[in-house]
Amino acid sequence: MTRTNAEILADRSRLLGPNIPTFYEDPVHIVKGDGVWLWDADGRRYLDCYNNVPHVGHCNPRVVEAICRQASTLNTHTRYLHEGILTYVDRLTATLDPSLGTAILTCTGSEANDIALRMAEAVTGKRGIIATDATYHGNTSLVSQLSQSNVPTVGFGLGQYFRFVPAPDSYRSPDPNGALFAETLAAQIDALEKDGTGFAALVVCPYFLNEGFPDHPDGWLRPVAEAVRRAGGLLICDEVQSGFGRTGTHMWAHEKMGVVPDVLVLGKPMGNGHPIGGVVANREMVGAFRNGYRYFNTFGGNPVSCAAAMAVLEEIEDRNLLANAKAVGDHARRRLQSLAEKYDVIGDVRGSGLIFGAEMVTSRETKSPARAYTNRVINAMRDRGVLHSHLGRDKNTLKIRPPMPFSIANADLLLDTLDEVLAETPPQP
Amino acid sequence: MTRTNAEILADRSRLLGPNIPTFYEDPVHIVKGDGVWLWDADGRRYLDCYNNVPHVGHCNPRVVEAICRQASTLNTHTRYLHEGILTYVDRLTATLDPSLGTAILTCTGSEANDIALRMAEAVTGKRGIIATDATYHGNTSLVSQLSQSNVPTVGFGLGQYFRFVPAPDSYRSPDPNGALFAETLAAQIDALEKDGTGFAALVVCPYFLNEGFPDHPDGWLRPVAEAVRRAGGLLICDEVQSGFGRTGTHMWAHEKMGVVPDVLVLGKPMGNGHPIGGVVANREMVGAFRNGYRYFNTFGGNPVSCAAAMAVLEEIEDRNLLANAKAVGDHARRRLQSLAEKYDVIGDVRGSGLIFGAEMVTSRETKSPARAYTNRVINAMRDRGVLHSHLGRDKNTLKIRPPMPFSIANADLLLDTLDEVLAETPPQP
Repeated sequence: MTRTNAEILADRSRLLGPNIPTFYEDPVHIVKGDGVWLWDADGRRYLDCYNNVPHVGHCNPRVVEAICRQASTLNTHTRYLHEGILTYVDRLTATLDPSLGTAILTCTGSEANDIALRMAEAVTGKRGIIATDATYHGNTSLVSQLSQSNVPTVGFGLGQYFRFVPAPDSYRSPDPNGALFAETLAAQIDALEKDGTGFAALVVCPYFLNEGFPDHPDGWLRPVAEAVRRAGGLLICDEVQSGFGRTGTHMWAHEKMGVVPDVLVLGKPMGNGHPIGGVVANREMVGAFRNGYRYFNTFGGNPVSCAAAMAVLEEIEDRNLLANAKAVGDHARRRLQSLAEKYDVIGDVRGSGLIFGAEMVTSRETKSPARAYTNRVINAMRDRGVLHSHLGRDKNTLKIRPPMPFSIANADLLLDTLDEVLAETPPQP
Repeated sequence: MTRTNAEILADRSRLLGPNIPTFYEDPVHIVKGDGVWLWDADGRRYLDCYNNVPHVGHCNPRVVEAICRQASTLNTHTRYLHEGILTYVDRLTATLDPSLGTAILTCTGSEANDIALRMAEAVTGKRGIIATDATYHGNTSLVSQLSQSNVPTVGFGLGQYFRFVPAPDSYRSPDPNGALFAETLAAQIDALEKDGTGFAALVVCPYFLNEGFPDHPDGWLRPVAEAVRRAGGLLICDEVQSGFGRTGTHMWAHEKMGVVPDVLVLGKPMGNGHPIGGVVANREMVGAFRNGYRYFNTFGGNPVSCAAAMAVLEEIEDRNLLANAKAVGDHARRRLQSLAEKYDVIGDVRGSGLIFGAEMVTSRETKSPARAYTNRVINAMRDRGVLHSHLGRDKNTLKIRPPMPFSIANADLLLDTLDEVLAETPPQP
């Protein structure tokens, strides 16, 4: 049976409830994926410039083969012994600083962040968590409180433990060495200590992807990490988006930013869409959590997810996807810069590797966010078969974050199409 | 590479941290599964009488085929339109009371319970949650507070919202029509209302599996549900274990117990091990939650999990697994009753369908739990190639909860082996 889009939307409302997000004014009904391509129900092909979950490409053959092989051999839980989880964690932690050597595997990044915050509570004995005011770290009762753009009105009063610092914004409020951010953070830490909550942890995406990936030099997080450690708190790096080579220069964005987190959180791309997430820390911190709560996750670390995750690491390495991200990202940003010379609406071009984009403004003088215009561009791009999105506090930054096998030719198609769309979408007076 | 068990245990401690649960004094290193059978690394075969997650059998060909087919076609998220989630929720809710018509899909039962509790908060405006003192409902910061056998010392003070009633115990404190339980519950509801927390919901497994599946007549939960509704609270039925035909008499244990929950929670067997969970309620309650928090779950309801879950429903129906659970469960309990005539250590035989077992006691007069003995039995069974476990507050109830294709011959092998083990394991003086 194939429903029309109108029928699907009616059925979604009936079967899944109200207030469910979809992309685009005319949502896309996707039925097939392959590499960087998606097809809709009418057979139309789209270039996927958005999805980071299928990190090594939609329906990556190695990942699919690993899932099928393991699903037809054994899928069970960690109360029995199995080597899959050990071989995977060994290989994963080999890419990290030796202090990040012990992992808890979950099914989602949300579950992983939920553990990370409790780990901070177990280690510090305190509950105050600080994040930026334009981020997202997941959907459990606890971690959903970190979303200031979508503040939950439910959540058992957990909002009391969270404090926010303004998201860094390299375009409007340059902070070239992180000193300003560290200072604002220190003030929030002081406030938490003074009001009796106490400071447990700072949670950040090291490349601030949700915040619009501000243009920071490598090493930018060092003073931030110092402020956190000086106050006895933990630095939690949520690399659900920024990890696994996304930035092109490093396997992990925390390396790029010059710090080693106390706790590293993983999710989305880890299993190329197969539900798996994880928390990595040193053995003492994992122990503090595990002794504070005898954690068990039925599906967490099951042989099939570990096989999928292992195939992702192998693909990144064997296909040199880190180098590809750098080369293609550099090329795409050069072309975006050229477009910026042509279109005044582009205020700033930013990014690293295969996370990049442009901030759209109504005026380069006022730098005022062109939110409505950005939305029109994204919908026009969709209509021309190129899928991406927007992000940042004002939703005026083009968000381009394709699967890692994205090629120079793919980038050229994206930029050629963007050129056409910008030419045909004049800013309104 | 094949590690020895000692090497695996050392690697688990190094790579996964301390305090990780395993089954059996000599943990089993499982490498292969098929139907009701598991094989260890030495090629030894075990009869699986424990695992409910591979509900329609380990490596069920229909489920594996559905996963492989969909994983090689498309795996994406619900911000695009896809029919898989709609077709599945339509079919799932067709098995339920019409009031349970709207679903939120997650990746785990923990995520689902975490939503269910927030749904109760959104609907009632209150936060007090009541459960039994011998249950488990998951591992997030919020729902981990429901575990009294493993009380977390971390969790952002959420314990303040939880109250507990003694788990029903048909063997020692008969409560044949649920009136006693309803009364104790009403007292806890009053206490919550008086101390200002307010009563939001009762969360129970309708067949009380973690509590040792007490022997209750059908319809037993009716007075309990009345007490909940009278107080303006929600009845949340966590059917992660009891659902999908497990009890043999009904598709859902809440039907058996004579109630329609306000919120139904699903997990473990839903995708036969593929990570999927869900919350089902009426559209207004789902709306109250979705309007209180714009929930999105990256992997939740993805096409691959929906394909796996659909294959599970098809297998249950096409292979008449509900009727099989009834026939085999009835046979196994009759044989367990015969063993009870032979061995005084068996104090009580209980269960329905493919969840059954026997409570082991040191004396039928005092009904004192034979905890250590039960543990010896379980380990002796494992050594003879039959895997099951124990449960209940005193861990003295044999827990037998095999995959649903469990046959009469499988039950006979289980009971023959149990007979031998009981004969050779005399209770210590």
